[in-house]
This record gives sequence, C-alpha cells and structure tokens, in this order.
Amino acid sequence: MTKRKVCVVITNRASYGRVKALLLALNQHPRVNLQLVLGASLMLSRFGEAVEIIKRDGFTVSKTLTYMLEGDTLSTQAKSTGLGIQELASVFEDLQPELVVTVADRFETMATAIAASYMNIPLAHIQGGELSGNIDDKVRHAVTKLADVHFPATSQAEQRLIQMGENADKIFNYGCPSIDLIKAIDNLDSIDERIHRYSGVGNQINWDEDYILMLQHPVTTSFGDGFKQILATLNSLKTFTNIQKVVLWPNIDAGTDDVSKGIRIFRENNYDANFHYYKNFEPEIYAKVLNNAICAVGNSSSFIREGSYLGTPVVLIGDRQRNREHGQNVLFSDHDESMICSSIKSQIAHGKYQREFIFGSGEAGVKIADQLATEPLTYIKSMSY
Amino acid sequence: MTKRKVCVVITNRASYGRVKALLLALNQHPRVNLQLVLGASLMLSRFGEAVEIIKRDGFTVSKTLTYMLEGDTLSTQAKSTGLGIQELASVFEDLQPELVVTVADRFETMATAIAASYMNIPLAHIQGGELSGNIDDKVRHAVTKLADVHFPATSQAEQRLIQMGENADKIFNYGCPSIDLIKAIDNLDSIDERIHRYSGVGNQINWDEDYILMLQHPVTTSFGDGFKQILATLNSLKTFTNIQKVVLWPNIDAGTDDVSKGIRIFRENNYDANFHYYKNFEPEIYAKVLNNAICAVGNSSSFIREGSYLGTPVVLIGDRQRNREHGQNVLFSDHDESMICSSIKSQIAHGKYQREFIFGSGEAGVKIADQLATEPLTYIKSMSY
Amino acid sequence: MTKRKVCVVITNRASYGRVKALLLALNQHPRVNLQLVLGASLMLSRFGEAVEIIKRDGFTVSKTLTYMLEGDTLSTQAKSTGLGIQELASVFEDLQPELVVTVADRFETMATAIAASYMNIPLAHIQGGELSGNIDDKVRHAVTKLADVHFPATSQAEQRLIQMGENADKIFNYGCPSIDLIKAIDNLDSIDERIHRYSGVGNQINWDEDYILMLQHPVTTSFGDGFKQILATLNSLKTFTNIQKVVLWPNIDAGTDDVSKGIRIFRENNYDANFHYYKNFEPEIYAKVLNNAICAVGNSSSFIREGSYLGTPVVLIGDRQRNREHGQNVLFSDHDESMICSSIKSQIAHGKYQREFIFGSGEAGVKIADQLATEPLTYIKSMSY
Amino acid sequence: MTKRKVCVVITNRASYGRVKALLLALNQHPRVNLQLVLGASLMLSRFGEAVEIIKRDGFTVSKTLTYMLEGDTLSTQAKSTGLGIQELASVFEDLQPELVVTVADRFETMATAIAASYMNIPLAHIQGGELSGNIDDKVRHAVTKLADVHFPATSQAEQRLIQMGENADKIFNYGCPSIDLIKAIDNLDSIDERIHRYSGVGNQINWDEDYILMLQHPVTTSFGDGFKQILATLNSLKTFTNIQKVVLWPNIDAGTDDVSKGIRIFRENNYDANFHYYKNFEPEIYAKVLNNAICAVGNSSSFIREGSYLGTPVVLIGDRQRNREHGQNVLFSDHDESMICSSIKSQIAHGKYQREFIFGSGEAGVKIADQLATEPLTYIKSMSY
Repeated sequence: MTKRKVCVVITNRASYGRVKALLLALNQHPRVNLQLVLGASLMLSRFGEAVEIIKRDGFTVSKTLTYMLEGDTLSTQAKSTGLGIQELASVFEDLQPELVVTVADRFETMATAIAASYMNIPLAHIQGGELSGNIDDKVRHAVTKLADVHFPATSQAEQRLIQMGENADKIFNYGCPSIDLIKAIDNLDSIDERIHRYSGVGNQINWDEDYILMLQHPVTTSFGDGFKQILATLNSLKTFTNIQKVVLWPNIDAGTDDVSKGIRIFRENNYDANFHYYKNFEPEIYAKVLNNAICAVGNSSSFIREGSYLGTPVVLIGDRQRNREHGQNVLFSDHDESMICSSIKSQIAHGKYQREFIFGSGEAGVKIADQLATEPLTYIKSMSY
Repeated sequence: MTKRKVCVVITNRASYGRVKALLLALNQHPRVNLQLVLGASLMLSRFGEAVEIIKRDGFTVSKTLTYMLEGDTLSTQAKSTGLGIQELASVFEDLQPELVVTVADRFETMATAIAASYMNIPLAHIQGGELSGNIDDKVRHAVTKLADVHFPATSQAEQRLIQMGENADKIFNYGCPSIDLIKAIDNLDSIDERIHRYSGVGNQINWDEDYILMLQHPVTTSFGDGFKQILATLNSLKTFTNIQKVVLWPNIDAGTDDVSKGIRIFRENNYDANFHYYKNFEPEIYAKVLNNAICAVGNSSSFIREGSYLGTPVVLIGDRQRNREHGQNVLFSDHDESMICSSIKSQIAHGKYQREFIFGSGEAGVKIADQLATEPLTYIKSMSY
Repeated sequence: MTKRKVCVVITNRASYGRVKALLLALNQHPRVNLQLVLGASLMLSRFGEAVEIIKRDGFTVSKTLTYMLEGDTLSTQAKSTGLGIQELASVFEDLQPELVVTVADRFETMATAIAASYMNIPLAHIQGGELSGNIDDKVRHAVTKLADVHFPATSQAEQRLIQMGENADKIFNYGCPSIDLIKAIDNLDSIDERIHRYSGVGNQINWDEDYILMLQHPVTTSFGDGFKQILATLNSLKTFTNIQKVVLWPNIDAGTDDVSKGIRIFRENNYDANFHYYKNFEPEIYAKVLNNAICAVGNSSSFIREGSYLGTPVVLIGDRQRNREHGQNVLFSDHDESMICSSIKSQIAHGKYQREFIFGSGEAGVKIADQLATEPLTYIKSMSY
Repeated sequence: MTKRKVCVVITNRASYGRVKALLLALNQHPRVNLQLVLGASLMLSRFGEAVEIIKRDGFTVSKTLTYMLEGDTLSTQAKSTGLGIQELASVFEDLQPELVVTVADRFETMATAIAASYMNIPLAHIQGGELSGNIDDKVRHAVTKLADVHFPATSQAEQRLIQMGENADKIFNYGCPSIDLIKAIDNLDSIDERIHRYSGVGNQINWDEDYILMLQHPVTTSFGDGFKQILATLNSLKTFTNIQKVVLWPNIDAGTDDVSKGIRIFRENNYDANFHYYKNFEPEIYAKVLNNAICAVGNSSSFIREGSYLGTPVVLIGDRQRNREHGQNVLFSDHDESMICSSIKSQIAHGKYQREFIFGSGEAGVKIADQLATEPLTYIKSMSY
C-alpha cells in the first residue's frame, strides 16, 4: 500500500501546540507519509527553540525555512508572506505532497495556501470558520476559499463554512487537536520539574504559589498602539504586588517590536517586582501553566480555546479576539489600566470555571488524520452557492 | 478639498478593457486623485504594448512593475505572485494610497489584495462574487474575503457575496464597466481604420467579410493539456475554409507556453489557411472585433460578459467558464474537434442574439467612481455571519 | 572512499557547451559525486530545450531552477540575479556541496558566486581572467575575487589573475574544455543527419552548400541599440543573395527582446531570402555548424574561442568581444552595414585559417576534473598582494 | 547649472560614521543633489535608532529599505543580499541616480554594487583596496571590480587597486572621511552630556573614571564559534574588576545571534560586575568613547582606523582584522582568555599611543565630494592589465 504524502506546514510556536496531537496521529497512521515543514518565526531563536522541541517530540523535519524579514512593519509582514510563497513553492516542487495542511489564520499561512492551491495541490485547512477580529479574520476566510477540505473546531465554525458556500461534504468538525493534547496530560494540576528547562529572565517563580499568566500579542489592525497597550496591561499587573506574574513574549505579528519594547522597558524599570519572563514553553508545559494560573491576562487565542476546556479565568484585553466564540471563563476588557485591574480582581474572586467542550472533547487528532489519509483528493472545488 | 488617493492596480490587458470606463470616471472625478499602477503581463511586449495604449488613452501611470517569472509552470505562477506582493508593498509605501482597487480574479491579483490588506489599506474589489471554474474561483472568492468594498457586476454575484457573509452595506452592484465602454462606441458595426495599427502575423483580414474570432486561454487546473486543447480548436476552425479566422494569443496563465506553442506549430504548418494572428487590441477595437465576428470561439470571459450585451454567437470550450452566469448567446462545447465544429456551425446558422443586460446597462464606471470617492474608509470588516 | 560533492551550476546553453567535456570527466571520476544544477535561461523553452539535451547526454540533473524575470530591462537583469541568489542558497542548503563550480562571466553567474562564497563553500571559477568588453568584464573579475580556485583558459588570462592578486598556487591553466569537445568529434567536416532534429523556421538549409552563420547577442552596456544593431547585420547578410544564412537567436541578456524583435521583423519582411532561424543546437552540432560556415558573423565568444581552434573566418561586430584575446581568424567591424559587408567579403575570400591553440589543446576537462577532486578545500583566500 | 544626482547607499551604523563627513560635504556641494538611501540593519531597532540620528544630523532621507531576513545563518546572509538587489534596483529606477556610492566591504554592500553596475549606473567605491580577513576581503575586492571610481583610504590600498588592474586615473586617495569627523570634534577628551541620551543596560558608567571599550563582531568565516569567542573576551574583561567596561552589541553579520546570546547570558550571570551595554552611539559620541577608553578590546575596524589617529591602545582579537594595515596602537591576540588578559594589561600599562595618519589627515569628505561632483561619468571600465 502506497502511503499518501501529507505535508503539514507549521509557522508558529502556538500552531504547533494546536496541532501536535494531529501530527502524532499522522506520524503513526499506516497510510500516511508525514512531511513536516517548519518555517517563519518557528525558526527564530528569539521566539524560543521550537524546532528543538519538535524534534525532541519525535518528529522528522522534512524542511526548515527562513522567510521572515526583520524590521517590524505592516509592509514587512506582507513581504515576508511573498517570500514564503517563493520558498514554499520550491519545497512543494521537491516534496511533491499529495495534500498540504495549513493551520489557523496567521498572516504568513496565506503563503502556504497560495503556494499549494496555485500548484494544484489539494489543501486542507484546520480551524477555519471561526471569528476573532484583527486581520486574522480576513486571512482565515481567504484561506478557507483557497482550501479544499475543512476541519473546523466548533459547530458554529462549521455552520459558518457552510454559509460561506463551502461544500458540506468537505467539512469535518472533529474539534480542535489542542484539546486532545490537554486531555492526554497525566497530571494537569502539578507543574513538573520540566519547567526548569526554561530559564527565562527575572524573579524566580514558585510554581506552587499563585501566579497570573500574561500573554499579549500586537493587534495589526491597530498597528502603532502596541507599546501603550502592553504598558497598560503590565502596570495593571504590577498592582497585584503579592501575586507572581509569568510573562510570555508576543508572536511575530506586525507590531511585535513595539510590544517587546514595552516589556523590556517595563522590565528594566521593575527589576524588583515579581515578574518572570519566558520566551516559549513546549505545549504540555504551557497547558499546565495555563491550567494553574489564577488568572490569564492578555489576548492569546489559547485563553479562549484551551482556556474554555481548562476553566481558567481569563481577562481578554482589546479587540484581537473580540468576536471569537468563547466559554464562560472569559471576561473582556478594554486597554484601560483600571478596567483591567478590576477585571482581574473579579476573575480571581470567581476562581476556576466549569469545563466546557466548545472546542471538542479530545479526539480531533486521530479523526482528522484518518480523514486526511482517505479523503478523495481534488483541487477543483464544488461550492454550494 | 483634499482628494482621496485611489490606487488602481491593473495586471492584464483584459482587465484594462474591463475597467477603462471606471478609470476615465476616476480621472475626471473632482474628489479623486487616481494612482494607476501597471504590472505583471501588462509590461511584457509579447502580450502587446498595453502600456502604450493606456498612455495614449490619456492616463498618467504612477508606477510600472515587472514581476512575472519566465518559465511557464504552476510553480512560477505562485512565485510571481509572491514577487508581486513584495513589489506592491514597496509601491504602496511610496504612494500611500487611501484605497486600493483590484480587478476580477487572475492569479496575480492576489498579490494586490494581500499587499493592501496586510498594510491596513482599504481594498475595493471589482467583479467579485461570480462563478467560473478553474483556479479563478478560488482566487476570486479569497480576494473577496480580503476586500472591504465590493462592486459585483451582476445580481447573482451580489447575492453570492451576501451569502458568503459580506456586509450588504459594502456591496454595490452597478454592473460591469466593460459595458460602459461598449455603449460609448459610436459605430460598433464598422471596424475603422485604427485596426491597421495592429499588424499581426499571417493572412490579411478583410474586415468587411465574415470572420470567426478565436481566443483560448490555458486552464491552470488542467495544466499540461493546453497544447492538445488548442490544436483541437484550431483544427476545427481550419475546416471552415471559406471563413477568415482572427486568432488572439492567450493570457499569461500557467500553461501559456503550451497553448502558444500549439498556435505557433499550427501556424508554421498552415501558412496558407486564412488565419491571422494578433497579440492585442485596444479595448474599443476589441469590442468591435467581437461584435462583428460571426462566431467567437474559445474560453475568454469577454465572450460571456461583453458577448451577452453584443449578442455575438459564442462557442465556449472546456471548463474555464463553465459555471459563469451567461446569456443566450453562449453554447458550451468540450475540447472535442467535431463537437466544436458542429457547435460553430450551429452558432453561425443562428446568427446574432438579442442584447442582454446581465452585466449592467452601461453606467458602472461613473457610479463606482463616485462610491470610491465617498465611501467611508475602513479596513476592519464587519461581516454578517 | 567518500566522494567529494562537486556542484556545477550552469545557467546558459553556451556555458553547457563550454564545460560539457568537464562534466563528462567529473561524471566518470571515481572521487567525485557530481551535482548538476541547471537554472536561468537554460530552463526556458524559447532558448531551446537545453535540459532535454543535457539529460540525453547522460547527466543526472540534481535541481532545475527558474529565476529569470520576464520583461527585458537592465533592472530585471539585476533582479533576476537577486532571485538567483535566493534560489541557489536554498539549493546549496539542500545539496551541501563541498565545492561549487561556476562558469565564465554571464550576469546571472554572480548569483552562484555570491551564494557559494557567502555560505563558506569553496568556489571554483572556469574561464576567469579573460578580457572582453561589456558588463561581462566587471562580472568576470568580481567572480574571480569571490572564487578560491581558478581555471583560466589561456596564458594571458592566467597572468592576469596573478596580477590581480590571486594566489598562483590556486590557478591552473589547463585550457578551455570547449576545445576538448571539438577534438572529440569524429567527423568535424560533415554535418550529420542529427541536424534534422532541429526544425527551426525559414528556408531549408542545404548543409552541403555554403552558408554564413550569424549569432549576435545584445550588448548590455549599450542597452537600447540592439534593434538597430541587429538590423545592420541582417541587412548586410541579405546582400549575399546566393549564400545561405543560418541565424541563431540571441542569449537572454538585457536587450534580448530588442534583438529578437529585430530578427522577427526582418524575418516577416524577408520570407523569400534564404535565411534559416534556429533556437539552439547541442554543442557538437554547433561545433560542426561553426566549423563548416564560410564565415561566422556577430559577437558570440564561441567565434573567438572555438573559432580560433577551428580556423573559421569570423567577422566580429561591435564592442562585446573587443578586448578578448583572439586568433588570426577574427576581423573586427563596427555596427555599420557596409563595413560588415566588406568584412564578410574579405573573410570569405580568405577562407579557412590555420588552427591555433590559444584556448588549449583539448585535455582541459580531465585535468580540471582531477584538480577539483583533489584540490585542498578552503574558502579563506590567501592573496598575493 | 543642473546638479548631479549622487546616490549614497548606507546599510550599517558603522558605515554612517565612516562617511558622515562625506555626506555633509555632498549636502553642501553646489553641484550635487544628494540622494541618501538607508537600508539593511540601519533600519532595525535592535541595532539602535540610526535613522533618527541621521535625520537629526540634518539629512533628508530619500528612501529607507528593509531587506534583512531574520534568522542568523550564512544562508540568510546570502538571501538578504539577493533581496537587497531587488529592492535597490527598484529604488534606482525611481531615483535615477547618475552616480551611486557604496561604502567599504560588508556583505550586503554587494547588493548596491550589483544593482548599480547591472543598470549601467557608474559606481564609486569608498575604502576599497584594503585587506582584513574574513569574507569581507572577497566582498571588498569584488565590489572594486564592479566599481568605476575608487576612493581608497590609504596609500597601500591605492597601490593594491592599481595592482589589481584598476585604472590609476580613476583612483583617488584622499584618506578616510572618518578621520575628518574626529578632527572636527571640539573637545575630544571630554564625553559630554549627550551620552545620556543613550540609556543602555547594566551598571551606570562614570565617564570620568577609567573604562575599557569592547566591540566584537562575529567572524563569518568561522561561523559557529562566535558564542565561545565572545565569552572568552567577556570573561577576560571580568577579571579587571576595578575598571568599568563599556560593551557594544555586534553588527548583523552571520553569527550575530551567537555573539549576542553570549553577551546576554554573560549579562544574566554577571549583573553585579561593572559592565554597561549599549546598542549604538552616534559617530561623534562613539569617537569620544573610543578616544577616552584606556583600552579597546575586540575586532572592530574602527579600532584600527579611527584608533590609529586617536592613539587608543587596542587589543585586536582573532582573524577578522588580521591583515588590515594598522598603526602602532594595535596588539593582536588569539581567542584565548589568558592571552587577552595579558594583552589588555600590557596595553593599559603602555597607555595612549602617538597619533598616526595612515588613514588620512581629515580632509577626505570635501575632496571626495568634489570628485564625485565633477568626475566624468562612465560605466565602461578601462583597465590597465
């Protein structure tokens, strides 16, 4: 039996966590030859040594690509996408995949979608159909229109894909593989010693004590405001003097430099406050850190996705996820210091939320892998307009 | 009163004809500062000296761009799009447009859509919402998802955009500006002496006698079949020994080289058949040539669009326009020599069709220009899912 | 014994003929693993199906690259070189060559030299140290400065490399492999039936009768004059009404479109003149065609290189090769119709010249291959300034 | 009188200091229209806000370009150069300079040289003909071969250019403009309060007390060793417990990430040692800092160039400048902790050296500007081989 060559392109540390369960299932599938391509910010050391983590997880990497321009502007974001198309077209020529898989909605994923669809390679899209806010919406729906098979993560997302004219026969809602990963973790409530692999910078965290987790990305549609926005959040956190703060650096969207600069300046001026700064965690460690936070603050989509399953109280700041389907655990706040403060207090007072299954119940990886292995291959879409 | 900087990006000779009426209206609009950017195959002499035509029509060209890779494969089509993003991002940095306009559905138009939307520049899309076949469908709908304002050309297209979740307030169906252009032509039934600007190759055409017009592009979703397909068409045409044949060279989609090679080889072997080969006509001349043909054969979308208004009998070959909304004048045929022959005979026997107004009644340019001049500017989409 | 991975990058039909003997020797060398990379205009069908010829010659092609921008300007020439660097850097990452070989002086060869030297891969340069004219001089000497090992083809070239500060220990003058190729041809005086593989366009050539060979490339340092220049040559040739003319299309230097346009227009207007137009010949056929021409006209460097060995009378037009070391067989002419005419007459009257060995005696391939297999590898130059 | 459009491309903070005096002279020259193009690492905030400094110095910036790929490898260094060619070719099309000026020998300067020379724009090269070590030698001499006019900074360099075959009529040794800049500083011995614009990280420096200056770049020809090398230097410095240490971050050569990582880790582990870390100084401040250091340690070429004029004792570590012409003030050391220590001790003991004029006496800017304004323009080289 010849194996189907399925090429998964991952461009971001968060996306890896999002689909790790799927990758494991593809790796073990008897009818699949997994081609793993890693690119964009995954390759950059300043976003953590993600490639090392991925290899340690047992995956063979077919190709690594570096196509992000330095210099953090909206224009370089566009140009990097253009470069990504060129690099990925070469890679697809070499690897000759029968099916390409792209994940979610980051700007550079458009490169994967264009290279594959323009080369007549069937394209599968994980996590289409959602709503969030930001440029991500445009990208996500445009990728949907270039894709041939869809694996939305929620029922609402599934319905939206159908409404958008995608053929219902090509839409499979198996939930989000990120939930599988959490479900497979043995002891979710204790942060084990593997955390000490990650040195970070700043005060030592005592993981048995209370801490707030912060992760706040730039919002490209309000490019230029990131510096002010991150300082509002950090200054709010600072008022919780007795609670430890775990800060993760932002993704590489346009505006990252502003956000990072805000964090660096805050750090310089607040050496004694109990903040600790990390570049990256592997997905399982991150799940534990999120699970055990007394509150998660910022605008990471993981707060909504994994958060709804874990029940972590979340203060979601600004517009980036404003329209995203979410659980009870999320409280929205503007970029306003006092509003953030009171929201955090309210969430800490509430404590853990009930588990919700909006993003599935933890079998997504195996089911998606099976579909990818057997789904008839086509790059000619029949739409149901 | 400051003028709004509206940047229209045109990448193809056909697109120029499609929006010339709009460009004229923008050029004369008191509240618009038109920035005209010409790129991709428009810049290539083997597709005709389109830039010269455009300047002769009185337009000031803000920038010309060359970003098509030679070597006609699916992969170069993707890579050229990537290069287009890089070039257009630089151009938008220089020109600082307040609004970018992209036309229709060709593969390289994705570069315009990505560069503009990633740079937070509001994007208007002309001729979204249609169905055709081919990769064009994917591109057209993906551009819709990146666009903020829509100018579909038909009611069906308008409805489809609404179904796809676009905000009805941002959709304006004023018809297709290509109809304006035809309507403005004084003497549509006589091909004037300007035709002699275009020398072409092959037998002299007597424009007062009957002729068949042929224009057949490659179909990228069946890349590799173009050579066989064009020969089927040309050999069919050859059987109409007493009727003159006017052949236009194909667009620069992946597969162009195959189609062109087919035409060249056919030409070498059929010097004495009464075929004449042209690279390009300016839009008005083309409209006249299409209007006066006793039959139009191939797969150009102009056969459907302008053709429905002109009533020219059309034999539409293959899948490229299979799903496109069309008038009574269109008869579909497979890539089969005898089926093409009998379809042509049938269409010649029928003769001219009644004028239809599917693509509007000829006021699109002025109305779209006015909307572009006044529409509130936003790059944050509210969708109606 | 592990084999040394030697990567030869060829970007042009002429370069292939220039090093075919070397490639054969590398292919057979017990200590070499030949990696053959084909790129740039070699991949374009309008320059002949060179890749097919190369495969038919028994070579395994490691990688083919397409990186030439369409649209024939000085700027696209520069940009294509930039694209070439990007493509070749990826290829060198994949192939991990221990030594890269670049040939001669064409503009796009700079991409090979930069990618290799910037990646700390030792670089060997074939045919450095010569003088010609045109941008080629700048390119050739710049490549020399990036290269670690040198294989000049003449004694003068060798001396020049030493003068330029290259280390004499790293310079090996074994002659030009193009001479090997000619020497190996059995029956140089008869053009065998393989010529009929090449259809070409125009009048049939009777290869037993007299013919003039014409091959004239654009001169990038006088970009814009190519159209006028080629017509001067073609009109001169036309006056030799009783002699057949074999015309080859030019290389893809900036200005090619102008030269090609001149040829096409001349052809349209002179169907009855006895000209025949060919896209390409494989190297051995070309050698025979050059050998048996009663005169070779234009500015191809092969007229000087192979021509001096073959003794073919040559009329060398313009500046492109003005400074190149050459044999008795070359007569220079300006781009002047009557001067070209009289030069041709004079050369035909003279007839064949004595064989000269300026470019070696035909053992270059084997010697260079041996040196490449054994030369100590270094990318740190010791210069002798 | 029409002014000559002279375009200077600067890609690096050090290059700006190197030619600031020339830029001032060009800006004031009645026959010159200065076009200043800033690109590459100059645009990156992590290398300091150089563009702001340049604007504050009164220059109008014609264009800023971002073309450095993130991800610090030899391959991205090559690819960034390729991207630079593409960007600069577009810029030269827009600006239509009559003369392009490129500075020194960094890898990305090759992009300037190729874009200009391939587009038939005369190219002037500042600081050619020197020897150093590293890939810089290859780049510098290759740029020489693409350049039409030369402004070497020393007599030895001038002689070397002549030896290399450059036409003596096109070589002008007016010294290095970096010396002009120092000569123009009023009070070289006191570091004024402007230093406090630069916050930096780490212990406060008391500029009236003794300090050692460290600036050590990666060496691309020993890519991979940078981490170890920088730690050897930093650990040596640490032993001088009573002397303050001023550390500057390295340039963006391949290997920068390694060097920076070394500095960061050292910093984390040595918060209490009296080190202070700066990103960048404007040229005049840097000159003062260099002048007043009791010893300069590392491999910056400024230690040799400006250092010889200032007489600052220098410990020059490793190969990067090994072959560079230098003054008495330089003591070479291997990447060996104890050898570095003893060299520093020896230099501190020696104290200030006599001023030397190897790199000129401080009138280079005005003289070069005048030559650029009047030199006959040509892009066709006559060489003196």
